[in-house]
Amino acid sequence: MWQSLRINMSDFTIVKEEFGDLYMGLGGRGLIAKLLTEEVDPKCDPLGEKNKLIFCTGIFAGLGLTCANRLSVGGKSPLTNGVKESNVGGTTGTYMANLGIRMIIIEGKPENQNGLWILRIDANGEPHLENAMEYAMVNNYELTKKLFERFGTNISITSIGSAGERQYRNSSIQCTENGTGYPCRAAARGGLGAVMGSKRIKAVVIEKAAQRYKHEYKGDENTFAALRKEINKQIAETAKKSAISIVGTASIVDNTSRNGAMPVRNFSGEKFENAEKIGSSAFMDLITKQGKNKHACQPGCLVRCSNIINDTDGKYVTGGLEYETIALFGPNCDVDNLETIAKMDRACDDIGLDTIDTGAAFGVCMDAGVIKWGDVDAMMGLFQEIVKGTDFGRILGDGCEATGRHLNWRRIPTCKNQAMSGYDPRAQRGTGTTYATCTMGADHTAGYIRSTDRREAFPVENVAEMSLDAQHKMGIRDSVICGFAFAPLLAQMDVFVQMYASVYGGEPEVSRVLALGTDTFRLERAFNTAAGWRPEDNKIPEFFYKEKNRVVDDVFDIPPERLQQFGL
Amino acid sequence: MWQSLRINMSDFTIVKEEFGDLYMGLGGRGLIAKLLTEEVDPKCDPLGEKNKLIFCTGIFAGLGLTCANRLSVGGKSPLTNGVKESNVGGTTGTYMANLGIRMIIIEGKPENQNGLWILRIDANGEPHLENAMEYAMVNNYELTKKLFERFGTNISITSIGSAGERQYRNSSIQCTENGTGYPCRAAARGGLGAVMGSKRIKAVVIEKAAQRYKHEYKGDENTFAALRKEINKQIAETAKKSAISIVGTASIVDNTSRNGAMPVRNFSGEKFENAEKIGSSAFMDLITKQGKNKHACQPGCLVRCSNIINDTDGKYVTGGLEYETIALFGPNCDVDNLETIAKMDRACDDIGLDTIDTGAAFGVCMDAGVIKWGDVDAMMGLFQEIVKGTDFGRILGDGCEATGRHLNWRRIPTCKNQAMSGYDPRAQRGTGTTYATCTMGADHTAGYIRSTDRREAFPVENVAEMSLDAQHKMGIRDSVICGFAFAPLLAQMDVFVQMYASVYGGEPEVSRVLALGTDTFRLERAFNTAAGWRPEDNKIPEFFYKEKNRVVDDVFDIPPERLQQFGL
Repeated sequence: MWQSLRINMSDFTIVKEEFGDLYMGLGGRGLIAKLLTEEVDPKCDPLGEKNKLIFCTGIFAGLGLTCANRLSVGGKSPLTNGVKESNVGGTTGTYMANLGIRMIIIEGKPENQNGLWILRIDANGEPHLENAMEYAMVNNYELTKKLFERFGTNISITSIGSAGERQYRNSSIQCTENGTGYPCRAAARGGLGAVMGSKRIKAVVIEKAAQRYKHEYKGDENTFAALRKEINKQIAETAKKSAISIVGTASIVDNTSRNGAMPVRNFSGEKFENAEKIGSSAFMDLITKQGKNKHACQPGCLVRCSNIINDTDGKYVTGGLEYETIALFGPNCDVDNLETIAKMDRACDDIGLDTIDTGAAFGVCMDAGVIKWGDVDAMMGLFQEIVKGTDFGRILGDGCEATGRHLNWRRIPTCKNQAMSGYDPRAQRGTGTTYATCTMGADHTAGYIRSTDRREAFPVENVAEMSLDAQHKMGIRDSVICGFAFAPLLAQMDVFVQMYASVYGGEPEVSRVLALGTDTFRLERAFNTAAGWRPEDNKIPEFFYKEKNRVVDDVFDIPPERLQQFGL
Repeated sequence: MWQSLRINMSDFTIVKEEFGDLYMGLGGRGLIAKLLTEEVDPKCDPLGEKNKLIFCTGIFAGLGLTCANRLSVGGKSPLTNGVKESNVGGTTGTYMANLGIRMIIIEGKPENQNGLWILRIDANGEPHLENAMEYAMVNNYELTKKLFERFGTNISITSIGSAGERQYRNSSIQCTENGTGYPCRAAARGGLGAVMGSKRIKAVVIEKAAQRYKHEYKGDENTFAALRKEINKQIAETAKKSAISIVGTASIVDNTSRNGAMPVRNFSGEKFENAEKIGSSAFMDLITKQGKNKHACQPGCLVRCSNIINDTDGKYVTGGLEYETIALFGPNCDVDNLETIAKMDRACDDIGLDTIDTGAAFGVCMDAGVIKWGDVDAMMGLFQEIVKGTDFGRILGDGCEATGRHLNWRRIPTCKNQAMSGYDPRAQRGTGTTYATCTMGADHTAGYIRSTDRREAFPVENVAEMSLDAQHKMGIRDSVICGFAFAPLLAQMDVFVQMYASVYGGEPEVSRVLALGTDTFRLERAFNTAAGWRPEDNKIPEFFYKEKNRVVDDVFDIPPERLQQFGL
């Protein structure tokens, strides 16, 4: 049977327990929603002793299905003050699954906040807390180098940089990547790095399993194996034709720069003049000369959307440079140079910051006149302030909303204190509706919907329904598999439910799989409501209603009242 | 008939209108509650164009009743995000009343936030907007000096310092004092100075009335005159025996240092070792050598609780040094020198900051180790940061809650983002209950209750009722008269209602006067609820429940659930 580890950082007790019936059949985001509901006071201080930090894998982790070994990280968010599940590739999920560990719960908080620990899980799945004071304020790239030196290379590392140690509300948790070992994969959004910092866990180091855990199927293992083979094949074939695999998410620039969704100069709604400098073609030029594409961020991935970017000397800069990072540090800050953007991505991964909220914060700084548009040196200066922990650096570390409030600036592109990602709600009204109404704050992954700018084709009610439907589906996806591999499962619900029943037993009923979305959603909404979220918090900032996006020649038009009706 | 002035700062229109029936019989806090309810969207941005800044006088202003010419300032608070009425002595209320102006409403907001204006009301009551750019970032002492030079000394000045211009959420509005002309009287709490700053009004200058306005009584003028004479006499006689008149509010130190209510080192609950150095006796020594007591802050005041403090060379330092300022900058920051505290009071009046929230913020800085306990030079350094607008200075300018959050400090003595004043809720459980449940944030003036530390004498339900009763009465007081002159009216409700009917006509029914409290309260609560306040926001910070006050040897004990029941 799968195991759970429970690490109490108040009294330093460690308990290994069976992954029990209460949570059986759940994984990833759904498992986090359930555990938070059962064990965490929704009103608790996200950085206090009552919050819990959860690491877990999806429902099909460790079973040979490609892209199914993502790691979900969860807890009450210090950024949104609600539920947060942030999932990430890299090696951690695989290492956990191979040890038969489904879930790690870190609870409590050391009274002595000056201490710092590593949670090491050895090759037999035994957890150990080890002193990590020597790594205090060491950022992720140097940290992982030191930990590989200390523990050997057969480990996965899940760590925080100085941002998490300082408990910045926009701190990420970084995972080492498959192949390279670089800490470039981020459970980025919602400030869970700060929760890890409050627990004073610098890193979770997981050793390669001495013996690979073998799941006892409650249904028919052969059925699962056959269907898995077919789905793996479909995922690989779909990927072959997909720009996401061929180029990576950077390919999205081509569309969003055309259709007005790409944020430009703090979501000004203007068109970006130099879009071609950061588009697919420019990206492929860069990758060809100085890097690599089609990189698999997690072991066994058949989609391979990731990439490696080197400098002109061939020295590694960053990995996993994604569209949202390009959009937020690029056009949103009036920057049109991919190599520069890659450096910003590297800085965020190193310090342990979400690139989206940081890029959005920088954009607000420029809009408010703190630094000049496109001033790369000044942006690097802001990173220095964040690292040093100057007063302004601490504010920046708390993200876009905190920065905008500090500057008394009115144009702050956030929902529930979390920055919008690379999609302007005026051009993607469905994604905008998701930003305003989902359980995660402004998060495109919670219900991404493309091209809903035309009001005649997509009337308000239609957009609202599209968003809600997408939000439910994404609740399923985040419990199961990487977003870029989800389509074949979603399209063949009969196959999906048979696979589910093979692993967990019982009948292959569609309702069981749909419940992964609907139940998750219900629990998350209830948690957020109890935490203090209100219908009127479902809102898009006023300036999107007043200032037109010039590409679509329109403002955001989903009425505030309609947004408030979600989740009541 | 009384007039209202309506100044629109979006289009610079000025309208003079009759003080109409909708508001007749209302004044001060009650009038503000009514106007906010009628005209301001509770969800609006307090620093945005939809908020309004209201200056008004009480129901008996200009009618010869002593202490009845206070100025009430109101709007949606940028600190608490709820209703805010902050009242102040000085000359402004009298100058308005003598011109027959009951209310000044400043609405809208200039698109060009770089402009700055003076609202000048001439001797005939005619309003004019005048360019004030030459006074940008000039603080109140220098500003008032320049304005007296420019407009002569027959004016009252109501102004903001650099804090208000910077829209710090803890900015005050200062009024010039009777006799001295110094800007030492503050409408201090709730950040209304920032609202004035957002409207870009640097000062309201009111000239002495060419002809004094004469009220047309709707009841019997002679009855009012006779009762007024009697009440004035009672107020003067009560004052003669009162420590508030003889010493000033500084006299409160003697009691609160004994009974544990005085905050010491960020509400640590410890006893202050050097209380005698800042008590009545020390204060009278200082005043006798270097100052003056029994000063009337508003014309015609018979209580005369105010004072003037000079330095050893006889040069004026500050006026109106109050207990709360002494408590928060004194023991709460481990400072035991009255002359030093007087300088801090001066700095706050000059920059335009609430002394309570600023002193509380400094206390948090010391508790969190940013500066040392009692380090006066470092405190003066913090004022410099506030004036310069450094990042930390801007955070300090936003008050105690913002400072504590920035420092990630857990011991923040606030309710609804507003700092507690000079009364520890563990020693004054009734005042603590008021902090948590009133409509104004942690504000002792909203329902001050002395000595409720003994649980056996004051069980929970008793304390809760005392607080609610006091909150209603203070709603009446803030519509009528200075708190130090209210007792005779409250004690003789029959006289009170006859005076009311003499001025406003109709029957002398007690319900009409009681409604000044209950109606005000109902409107304020409804506004705050619509603005987003929730029952669970009625709370006292956790550390007061966990850490004992050593003088009373007890924690705060009014259950969170009981606090939440208020106002539902």
